[in-house]
Amino acid sequence: MMLTTANFLFTQVGFIGLGNMGNPMAKNLLKHGYPVIATDVFPESCKELQELGAQILDNPAEVADKADRIITMLPSSPNVIDVYTGPNGILKKVKKGSLLIDSSTIDPAVSKEMASAAEKMGAVFMDAPVSGGVGAASSGKLTFMVGGAEAEFTAAQELLNCMGANVVYCGQVGTGQAAKICNNMLLAIGMIGTSETMNLGIRLGLDPKLLAKILNMSSGRCWSSDTYNPVPGVMEGVPSGNHYQGGFGTQLMAKDLGLAQNTATNTKTPVPLGSLAHQIYRMMCARGYASKDFSSVFQFLREEEGQ
Amino acid sequence: MMLTTANFLFTQVGFIGLGNMGNPMAKNLLKHGYPVIATDVFPESCKELQELGAQILDNPAEVADKADRIITMLPSSPNVIDVYTGPNGILKKVKKGSLLIDSSTIDPAVSKEMASAAEKMGAVFMDAPVSGGVGAASSGKLTFMVGGAEAEFTAAQELLNCMGANVVYCGQVGTGQAAKICNNMLLAIGMIGTSETMNLGIRLGLDPKLLAKILNMSSGRCWSSDTYNPVPGVMEGVPSGNHYQGGFGTQLMAKDLGLAQNTATNTKTPVPLGSLAHQIYRMMCARGYASKDFSSVFQFLREEEGQ
Amino acid sequence: MMLTTANFLFTQVGFIGLGNMGNPMAKNLLKHGYPVIATDVFPESCKELQELGAQILDNPAEVADKADRIITMLPSSPNVIDVYTGPNGILKKVKKGSLLIDSSTIDPAVSKEMASAAEKMGAVFMDAPVSGGVGAASSGKLTFMVGGAEAEFTAAQELLNCMGANVVYCGQVGTGQAAKICNNMLLAIGMIGTSETMNLGIRLGLDPKLLAKILNMSSGRCWSSDTYNPVPGVMEGVPSGNHYQGGFGTQLMAKDLGLAQNTATNTKTPVPLGSLAHQIYRMMCARGYASKDFSSVFQFLREEEGQ
Amino acid sequence: MMLTTANFLFTQVGFIGLGNMGNPMAKNLLKHGYPVIATDVFPESCKELQELGAQILDNPAEVADKADRIITMLPSSPNVIDVYTGPNGILKKVKKGSLLIDSSTIDPAVSKEMASAAEKMGAVFMDAPVSGGVGAASSGKLTFMVGGAEAEFTAAQELLNCMGANVVYCGQVGTGQAAKICNNMLLAIGMIGTSETMNLGIRLGLDPKLLAKILNMSSGRCWSSDTYNPVPGVMEGVPSGNHYQGGFGTQLMAKDLGLAQNTATNTKTPVPLGSLAHQIYRMMCARGYASKDFSSVFQFLREEEGQ
Repeated sequence: MMLTTANFLFTQVGFIGLGNMGNPMAKNLLKHGYPVIATDVFPESCKELQELGAQILDNPAEVADKADRIITMLPSSPNVIDVYTGPNGILKKVKKGSLLIDSSTIDPAVSKEMASAAEKMGAVFMDAPVSGGVGAASSGKLTFMVGGAEAEFTAAQELLNCMGANVVYCGQVGTGQAAKICNNMLLAIGMIGTSETMNLGIRLGLDPKLLAKILNMSSGRCWSSDTYNPVPGVMEGVPSGNHYQGGFGTQLMAKDLGLAQNTATNTKTPVPLGSLAHQIYRMMCARGYASKDFSSVFQFLREEEGQ
Repeated sequence: MMLTTANFLFTQVGFIGLGNMGNPMAKNLLKHGYPVIATDVFPESCKELQELGAQILDNPAEVADKADRIITMLPSSPNVIDVYTGPNGILKKVKKGSLLIDSSTIDPAVSKEMASAAEKMGAVFMDAPVSGGVGAASSGKLTFMVGGAEAEFTAAQELLNCMGANVVYCGQVGTGQAAKICNNMLLAIGMIGTSETMNLGIRLGLDPKLLAKILNMSSGRCWSSDTYNPVPGVMEGVPSGNHYQGGFGTQLMAKDLGLAQNTATNTKTPVPLGSLAHQIYRMMCARGYASKDFSSVFQFLREEEGQ
Repeated sequence: MMLTTANFLFTQVGFIGLGNMGNPMAKNLLKHGYPVIATDVFPESCKELQELGAQILDNPAEVADKADRIITMLPSSPNVIDVYTGPNGILKKVKKGSLLIDSSTIDPAVSKEMASAAEKMGAVFMDAPVSGGVGAASSGKLTFMVGGAEAEFTAAQELLNCMGANVVYCGQVGTGQAAKICNNMLLAIGMIGTSETMNLGIRLGLDPKLLAKILNMSSGRCWSSDTYNPVPGVMEGVPSGNHYQGGFGTQLMAKDLGLAQNTATNTKTPVPLGSLAHQIYRMMCARGYASKDFSSVFQFLREEEGQ
Repeated sequence: MMLTTANFLFTQVGFIGLGNMGNPMAKNLLKHGYPVIATDVFPESCKELQELGAQILDNPAEVADKADRIITMLPSSPNVIDVYTGPNGILKKVKKGSLLIDSSTIDPAVSKEMASAAEKMGAVFMDAPVSGGVGAASSGKLTFMVGGAEAEFTAAQELLNCMGANVVYCGQVGTGQAAKICNNMLLAIGMIGTSETMNLGIRLGLDPKLLAKILNMSSGRCWSSDTYNPVPGVMEGVPSGNHYQGGFGTQLMAKDLGLAQNTATNTKTPVPLGSLAHQIYRMMCARGYASKDFSSVFQFLREEEGQ
């Protein structure tokens, strides 16, 4: 076990938010020898990490008091605002020169606000949302999309490399979020489009495997058709082959599409298909699909009239 | 010049419809040594082929009287109905055992009607729409998606191989059309989705080339993002780099989406994104984009308010 | 009972299609003293009318052989084509100068075809689809929208007045259908829009009755908000107050929207909201709403996430 | 001139935001005898009111220092936040017991925040957005939709009656905004739906005036069809009869639909048609329709292909 030795070599890293994603991410920091100081609003979320050697504190302010590099991984914008600027927030006790990396997926406008608030305290804030789910978080194969001052990117990269396979610099603060949101909007459109298309083809008499093969050698090809096909039986090792369990939940996709919609409204950008994709995932959430993989839209559209 | 010799070896092939696509296709049959008997409603369309050695007749019935293998390449369903079942149509003089291959992109229901009408005359009808544009037609690199009796596929393949690089058997009559329509519907969705996404990302501060790179290594990847990117400057050799000239016209895409819509309505299949994509290309046609490449939807969505 | 006497005064009227709508319509003709000669593909549909004095024949051709004024009321375009131009169709034995009135809701292009076929036989065809459901059919309160030669309108009106409260002349053949389809498309848009709006308002804390009142005195007012409100409890005597039973079925609305979509595609008319309304009713049909009143879209949209 | 006398009878009313709407509203307060103390970020906006006897101060805080009843009429949420909680905002000097009425159209969530902030200072905040445009503001015929503590409604009503013909109590804080946003969302849907329908009907051969008449006596009827028809020539005295000048600008409608979209996203309410309506008005803004009346969507959809 190298951790003890490592503690001498590495300085402490703060980690706030030990949920499904944060927990395995923090573990990977430990594995790479970083002493971790963590906190979460749910004390029980901290137990496993504590047993692995992490120090658990009461709130974000205390973490900021001890660590000058902090990673946050939280569910949504209000949580981020609270963890950074709330009464027990990071910025209450942040040290000058601290590096604050937020891996939550939130509105880029909130990232900018946090960066501005951090700057006033002499700290640096970067947004670094991830793509890849719990599996990629566990195996340290996440992709990080990073926004913030380019000069700080190397420092951020050192930490993020412990948790991810790709760390991509996207530009100024907020562009990490922008890249994440853009990708997921196009992903949602591609997935619904693939599902509509496969369903239509099947009803017109085409064999689904054959149709997938034709699309994948033609201009209809997309990640949803060639890597994550939503039709049961077309492909192995994907949620459609396992009753749409696992994968990326419909509810999470609906959340990301809500962010895309907000940024589009704020920038007056027309996104007709992205907007309709949002509405479709919204309706699915209300019909029992919330925790199924987002490729279950095929099933949602598939049901036949009169049955 | 091998044609004279070839005439001894090959039996005549009829070709009806010498437009932008039909003309180079028929030429490829000639190049491969097939004597061609052709006709078109516009006599001037026949001149070039006549000079190359094709025999030109007055109407489809006369072609059917002389050739027992006929290829048709026509703009839309009504033309196909007329060329097959009209007063001077193929079926008026078709020989028993003739092979009739229709490469037009039309409603699969019409393909089925034509097949049924041909069967009554003892002839075989197959639908074999193409993907690939005028360039692929000229270079003999089209992809054919073929629907019809499997027993006749080899005979059809022999001819289609002269004009295409891929000949894919799709199933019963109409499934060639189904495959073509499905692919183009997903293509349209992917192209509009990519355009919305790139536009949103740019307005959020991302560099377009970087965004394309991120999408293409992530789950947003699709043919429109990695092979035919709609944003000027991101990629070379595509219509977006050439003022959206060439390529696949918006008007043709609108037509194919109309077919997709009809088949979806007839089979009671929900296609919300396909349906909205249809409406968007429809609106573009009315705003001067009809003959621009269909990737110009980026430009259509791009215009900024207040400018 | 006036019928016997009436038989001396009025000439016979043919009636083809004795379904939910046709049956009460034919009864109203009888009530007004017209001798009715009827037929239907389902013999059991004819019993009630026969008991009331109508003469029942085997098929449309036989009806046309006896009556020179015929009304047809059929489910969809293929039925109309068969009843007019099929092997036992009206046009096989129609008399010169006959007046053929089709009250089915079908594609206006099919109405035009029928008119043209009738004209060749020396007969006159008019399209006269209805608004108002089974209740209005029973009470003779239907609205007829009539397309066809203006010179024949008076003759048509004489019969239609027996079954309807309003008979509106719309223009050339097919415009009756056009008016019906247009009205129902706007109705569907208004109903879904009202449902979205009421649902949003309720979630924002507004009392539904108050919100309806505000909309109805403002620019949001529409038939769906002020006459047929889809929210249970807001209004009495409408399907929303009776578990969405009765009224106008979702499946019928989906059918009419499919017609609207087809005519829009054929005339290259952009109908983005009409098109999305079609998709929404399509999805509802697949989720068990097919036979509920079309105002049940409120319920469809209403379900809350996480419940 | 009663003003001097009136000054003895009425206590001062603050007015912040003297734009197109605020200016005539403040004038109506003066006409009713209220001494007005006003401010605006653009000094030139204050001149006219000053000449009519209003006292002009430098900023909202100063107004709050002198008047204990204040009306605000501002373009959007950020302006409201600044005017209430900014460095020179109302809440900096607001007196205990003051009544603050905001007639801006903004996100109801912001109204709630302002109400909460006001409450901390011992003041009462109500949201009271208006329907009716500049004309109604000038003639004192606005409709106010009021949210806030019911106990304060009478006090608010006294002032609002000077500027409006209808003052409707909607419920708790934010419900005024909710009612306004809901109405305008349904209005937008009805207007686009009417435009699609009229356009489709015209292309199917119907006379526009006749079609409007049929819709208005049928279930397609709505405010946009019977009071504000978007087709030139159908109705007099509406913007469609005057090149879509005057009326309610497309840009303002797009803004309100953006608010509707935000509240729908925040409450996880599916609004598929409302969302698409938003996108359509967004696209119109980018195509030169920003300052035309929102009924110009008929013109936007009307353009024909190939012209």
